Amino acid sequence: MASLKNIAIIGSTGSIGRQTLEVIRSFPGRFHITALAAGRNTVLLSEQVDEFKPEYVFYEGANKDIGDAEFLPLRDIVSLDEIDIVVMAPSGLAGLKPTLWAGQAGKTIALANKESLVMAGNLIIEETRKHSGKILPVDSEHSAIWQCLKGERKPVEKIILTASGGPFFNYSPTKLDTVTPEQALRHPSWLMGPKVTIDSATLLNKGLEVIEAHHLFNVSYSQIDVLIHPPSLIHSLIEFKDGSVKAQLSYPDMRLPIQYALSYPKRWVNRNLPRIDWTLIKNLPIEKPDTSAFPCLKLAYDAGRGGGTYPAALCGAGEACVQMFLNKKIRFTQIGIIIEQVLNEHKPAAVSDIEAVEETAKQAWSRAFEISRKRD
Amino acid sequence: MASLKNIAIIGSTGSIGRQTLEVIRSFPGRFHITALAAGRNTVLLSEQVDEFKPEYVFYEGANKDIGDAEFLPLRDIVSLDEIDIVVMAPSGLAGLKPTLWAGQAGKTIALANKESLVMAGNLIIEETRKHSGKILPVDSEHSAIWQCLKGERKPVEKIILTASGGPFFNYSPTKLDTVTPEQALRHPSWLMGPKVTIDSATLLNKGLEVIEAHHLFNVSYSQIDVLIHPPSLIHSLIEFKDGSVKAQLSYPDMRLPIQYALSYPKRWVNRNLPRIDWTLIKNLPIEKPDTSAFPCLKLAYDAGRGGGTYPAALCGAGEACVQMFLNKKIRFTQIGIIIEQVLNEHKPAAVSDIEAVEETAKQAWSRAFEISRKRD
Repeated sequence: MASLKNIAIIGSTGSIGRQTLEVIRSFPGRFHITALAAGRNTVLLSEQVDEFKPEYVFYEGANKDIGDAEFLPLRDIVSLDEIDIVVMAPSGLAGLKPTLWAGQAGKTIALANKESLVMAGNLIIEETRKHSGKILPVDSEHSAIWQCLKGERKPVEKIILTASGGPFFNYSPTKLDTVTPEQALRHPSWLMGPKVTIDSATLLNKGLEVIEAHHLFNVSYSQIDVLIHPPSLIHSLIEFKDGSVKAQLSYPDMRLPIQYALSYPKRWVNRNLPRIDWTLIKNLPIEKPDTSAFPCLKLAYDAGRGGGTYPAALCGAGEACVQMFLNKKIRFTQIGIIIEQVLNEHKPAAVSDIEAVEETAKQAWSRAFEISRKRD
Repeated sequence: MASLKNIAIIGSTGSIGRQTLEVIRSFPGRFHITALAAGRNTVLLSEQVDEFKPEYVFYEGANKDIGDAEFLPLRDIVSLDEIDIVVMAPSGLAGLKPTLWAGQAGKTIALANKESLVMAGNLIIEETRKHSGKILPVDSEHSAIWQCLKGERKPVEKIILTASGGPFFNYSPTKLDTVTPEQALRHPSWLMGPKVTIDSATLLNKGLEVIEAHHLFNVSYSQIDVLIHPPSLIHSLIEFKDGSVKAQLSYPDMRLPIQYALSYPKRWVNRNLPRIDWTLIKNLPIEKPDTSAFPCLKLAYDAGRGGGTYPAALCGAGEACVQMFLNKKIRFTQIGIIIEQVLNEHKPAAVSDIEAVEETAKQAWSRAFEISRKRD
């Protein structure tokens, strides 16, 4: 009989949070939800509290218990002694501090928020290690790399992250100029939240994943490549030093990497998860990306190589641009242009503490809005 | 400093034998060739003895030392105390007894001969285990599965062997009727000996690999699938019970699986091995095979499921048909027809000893010739 794992989900009302709860529903008796934390969607959070009966709850904008769940500050939630795994699934910048706190509390973190590692990878990894915590990747690409590394000795020769290419794969720059938020939100293969869906359309998401992979797997940027693979069946590949390559594939469904992080080192049968149907497949297209039409990928490599506070500036500007694009304040092609200007103006500093990182991101966020207004 | 590994190569003048020596040339100081065994190509064998200076040698048709290498019977060669790894690379039926003997001597066998396991899998695996020997797969597909299993817990859900489809992929049965040995020997992606190249063209080779995988990885036939993948970059895939799939890829070059078996559990850099160049790849085609045009694949599944001496009859008839086809005694499409008739007539028995297996194969071999003569 497997022992019960106590789980906290940070960002429980978001896309990854809801899918985590679906996985947990598929395995009655294996998990206990100790705590749920969300932003402002208290209607859904209350329903989740009713169903999963956590002891603790956090949300923004008030300070009140929900049902029998006691309200606790977020830092206290991620540090609770009784928690075995913290599923870290807030969207964007909001994941930064909770991830650091969970690491400092020595937790096993199932990490779905990439911005935290992108902005403060060295700091978070160092603090997590110091306090005997662990980071398990939940992003499908990083889960793929992690699965392929199982049983292998490092160092690896090359990590190849695959990208769906998003809804605008093969669009010309002219055609990209007029795409709408509605079009950008229609992702061809993955069901995801709005921030990451827009980032997928610009390839900024893949750029953030490059920086995330650099930190998670301790590889240099020249060892990380990106290939476009529209069906999202091959989630990533590793080349080993003998030239042998391993790839991990599955039907594109985030519940699998979530489940793998929760079941690790075991694998569990889950009949709710769709499988690849090979009778339907004729080929697995895979090719080099067009970085001229999608400049955000190159900007992310540059920010990663620049180091220090550059990646935080990238994330802040990126988040502002997604917000402006979704609100139809800027065109799709302006996203890369504005991020580039913010990065060009940025005066980098070493990352000493989390407050400096957050401050950099906020300033870049504001600066992106300013630039867009000047361009009006 | 790595310790020196002592190697015996059985079938050193064949395709796998020569490629094994190439790998060994790439790593001076890591291997010592203790023994070489070949068939009748004593010219090449003498050159190999001059270069690698083995203590022992075996070949067919005489009983004489070569240079300083002492002639020993084959059973003595594979049983030598000082040998760490026996590379087992004879073609076809000739691999049967040496593989059993090496297993009974408790050796680590880098197994490139598939017919031995196909014909006497249970016996060889049982004897090898009993004498604390080990079998490491060298066939590229089985090496791929083995690599993907590294670090994973069994049982697996499904093994998917890939096949190039051979030179006649997508040919109609009518067109297949007139193909020549010269055309069949022109394999589109792999450099291999004539027996396995013809078997690749009929898909019998893939059928033998299905039976080999059944024995090596202890999976039922319903857990083994075959997919056609003409570029031979994906060497095989495993589906785990959570639906996650792992694949191993590399440029099609047998030196990599040979090297992996020799370096295992490590991986070694070998700059002589070509790597996959992703700038040249646009897609990885992969699809279900056409078993009506290529009946040998289904015949192999049937023989495997039938068990007992059926697979030995399959191998014997298969080897005869390849020989007759290469000598232009039968047409390409007759290969499947003759094998089917031999199997239909075969009276199966349980496999009790290696002599019975060999006898079955020889009878099936003779019967295939008889059938072809009656049809003239």
